[in-house]
Amino acid sequence: MNSSEFRRRGKEMVDYVANYMEGIESRQVYPDVEPGYLRPLIPAAAPQEPDTFEDIISDVEKIIMPGAASPACTELESVMMDWLGKMLELPEAFLAGNTGKGGGVIQGSASEATLVALLAARTKVTRRLQAASPELTPGAIMEKLVAYTSDQAHSSVERAGLIGGVKLKAIPSDDNFAMRASALQEAVERDKAAGLIPFFVVATLGTTSCCSFDNLLEVGPLCNKEDMWLHIDAAYAGSAFICPEFRHLLNGVEFADSFNFNPHKWLLVNFDCSAMWVKKRTDLTGAFKLDPVYLKHSHEDSGLITDYRHWQLPLGRRFRSLKMWFVFRMYGVKGLQAYIRKHVQLSHEFESLVRQDPRFEICAQVILGLVCFRLKGSNKLNEALLQRINSAKKIHLVPCHLRDKFVLRFAICSRTVESAHVRLAWEHITELAAAVLSAERE
Amino acid sequence: MNSSEFRRRGKEMVDYVANYMEGIESRQVYPDVEPGYLRPLIPAAAPQEPDTFEDIISDVEKIIMPGAASPACTELESVMMDWLGKMLELPEAFLAGNTGKGGGVIQGSASEATLVALLAARTKVTRRLQAASPELTPGAIMEKLVAYTSDQAHSSVERAGLIGGVKLKAIPSDDNFAMRASALQEAVERDKAAGLIPFFVVATLGTTSCCSFDNLLEVGPLCNKEDMWLHIDAAYAGSAFICPEFRHLLNGVEFADSFNFNPHKWLLVNFDCSAMWVKKRTDLTGAFKLDPVYLKHSHEDSGLITDYRHWQLPLGRRFRSLKMWFVFRMYGVKGLQAYIRKHVQLSHEFESLVRQDPRFEICAQVILGLVCFRLKGSNKLNEALLQRINSAKKIHLVPCHLRDKFVLRFAICSRTVESAHVRLAWEHITELAAAVLSAERE
Repeated sequence: MNSSEFRRRGKEMVDYVANYMEGIESRQVYPDVEPGYLRPLIPAAAPQEPDTFEDIISDVEKIIMPGAASPACTELESVMMDWLGKMLELPEAFLAGNTGKGGGVIQGSASEATLVALLAARTKVTRRLQAASPELTPGAIMEKLVAYTSDQAHSSVERAGLIGGVKLKAIPSDDNFAMRASALQEAVERDKAAGLIPFFVVATLGTTSCCSFDNLLEVGPLCNKEDMWLHIDAAYAGSAFICPEFRHLLNGVEFADSFNFNPHKWLLVNFDCSAMWVKKRTDLTGAFKLDPVYLKHSHEDSGLITDYRHWQLPLGRRFRSLKMWFVFRMYGVKGLQAYIRKHVQLSHEFESLVRQDPRFEICAQVILGLVCFRLKGSNKLNEALLQRINSAKKIHLVPCHLRDKFVLRFAICSRTVESAHVRLAWEHITELAAAVLSAERE
Repeated sequence: MNSSEFRRRGKEMVDYVANYMEGIESRQVYPDVEPGYLRPLIPAAAPQEPDTFEDIISDVEKIIMPGAASPACTELESVMMDWLGKMLELPEAFLAGNTGKGGGVIQGSASEATLVALLAARTKVTRRLQAASPELTPGAIMEKLVAYTSDQAHSSVERAGLIGGVKLKAIPSDDNFAMRASALQEAVERDKAAGLIPFFVVATLGTTSCCSFDNLLEVGPLCNKEDMWLHIDAAYAGSAFICPEFRHLLNGVEFADSFNFNPHKWLLVNFDCSAMWVKKRTDLTGAFKLDPVYLKHSHEDSGLITDYRHWQLPLGRRFRSLKMWFVFRMYGVKGLQAYIRKHVQLSHEFESLVRQDPRFEICAQVILGLVCFRLKGSNKLNEALLQRINSAKKIHLVPCHLRDKFVLRFAICSRTVESAHVRLAWEHITELAAAVLSAERE
């Protein structure tokens, strides 16, 4: 949507809200619809080509308003998570459909999704062990639980371990910054021999530092064999899997218990919107379910309804699936794919500029929209370059460490980025690099 | 703001956003301001009388835009939480100011605030015990930790205990549904004698079921004496404490370590906005702080800055303090007080209608905007009445149990509610009650 259409549609929406407020007394306080009303009213998958804004608004009045906040808010979320899951070609087991045992939920952040998965896994293993040995207390079990993730994983995984009160061990990644089964297996064997209980693994697809990918096809079967919950954190990279040419990066998801990525990062949905799927929804509800009388309703456990409050940390919820519905329909799957492809192409354009300059090196394989690069030379030199870049305030780069190297990260992430921006940024960087190099020689 | 002003201002805001997007390339990617820039630019307290919309928008351009998303987002939040804390007359220790050890943070929900407090308390007691007895493992300590709350507390407290992996015990409330020190002390003594470690208490001001108030002036000193973290959950009732005549309900907050209420419930701030204060911010940051290189910045630990990511469960944050700034300024403290007073007055109006009808009884003291009432007679009778009310879909009531009684709850909570609505609702209820009573006699 360009700026002039935004002005027009934005003002129409303001009037829509004002009209709603003016007419609110003539509306029912409680909807007439029955649970499950919404799914048959909308297509089973996202459109390939864009819908018009008029079509979408007319559906809001026709499909959402009669379902008011509840159950429309819950039901649209279930269906949108199925749409998105289908775009990613997630295995059927992760979809809710009408009768599925799995399904998706919108969380606020990937951090929360990881924590929710860890807590569900903790409950599940505790129950399993207590069923076998009723004399075990939860405390005695928790003290022995151990979770694993790559040494490249996001800090939120370590935080989930802290909050959940379980040990978390970092598995050394390989030369491509990927977690491999051999290193994981070694840790698991050592811990089992020491009397600990391995129960949870977080694999990352698209790490924060350098967008590396853990080896799911190796790690997945190991998790299944050892009865460890496998959670996949694809916070950034997940959006790319809607393109067939990037879908292979998700191979192995079939071994996972839960999967998460952030449409708010790279799929044009405004912050916050973190999409999480599980294969067995009862794993989540089993961990969190509490039913006071003021939250009871006549449709409890009807099979038709989803009580998302048992799937998450907060109780209250916002109607975030509307954002997904609008974005998926206004772009169509093809429009979203084109957006991802453009970003990846621009990052390769930047990569080739870097590779043509012998003063620089590329530090990790460029797979999606992130380019890790640096001046050949000391960390001090690169810290000085970063300092100049960020002080000039024309572009902004966030660094990382890859092993002992201080590395600069060029991330393609703006909705409106074009080739011209990339070339300007590179010119700017090389000018500052020349200055840094000449200062070093003095 | 009435409907026609909303139309006008809403459309101005759409243009503001479109202009911003059109001019974005001429803006710096990184602000020029230094940490701490914002506080001196705005008043130390909320205005008593409303500001004009023009004044607020002009301040957005002047004060917020130069600070971009960061640090403006963080700094406005600190100042707004101070404004709100001052409205409530929170003790100075809870305010951040320029040099305070406490401060406020916006959480997504009261559930998250309770969980964050419990986790901070868990870390604090674990460190204290390990400092005294280094041989103790965290697991051995966690197994002995015990938290307390009233049997009237919200289910989210029990959930926080589940997630945090600690025992949570319900203290029997008194005849007014309040937690008293004597019952709490009894439980603490019994648990200590059994070798457990009491460490955390959640007191509720304004319970969900009947808006009862735990006795803070009794419970607070006991928590301090026993070295238990006291968290106060005033999710609904907290907004009322901005009125001097209701502030006494908060007496005893000086004994608490953390305090929370939801401006999104009753202070005209849109969902979500849950306001949490702590006396010692290091208690929170100590529990959650992890510092990967990609989140490091040059102002770390400068004393001037607040890293809210260490205060909460998610990593990412939204700019929710803007909502508070707009609401506090557009209403002024007096406007917000008038709004609270009107709701309380309307609930007393409903109460007096109920009291005038000998078929009905009031089931709990009416203090704020909630009236608990029922037909004199069996639970079955009242369940039938509720069924008729909610099937008619003119009004919607959510019930509760008070001891063995099934009770109806009439809640005043709409922004636009008037006396006429209350009287209409009462007429409707009495008509349906007559039908239910006559059906019973047949």
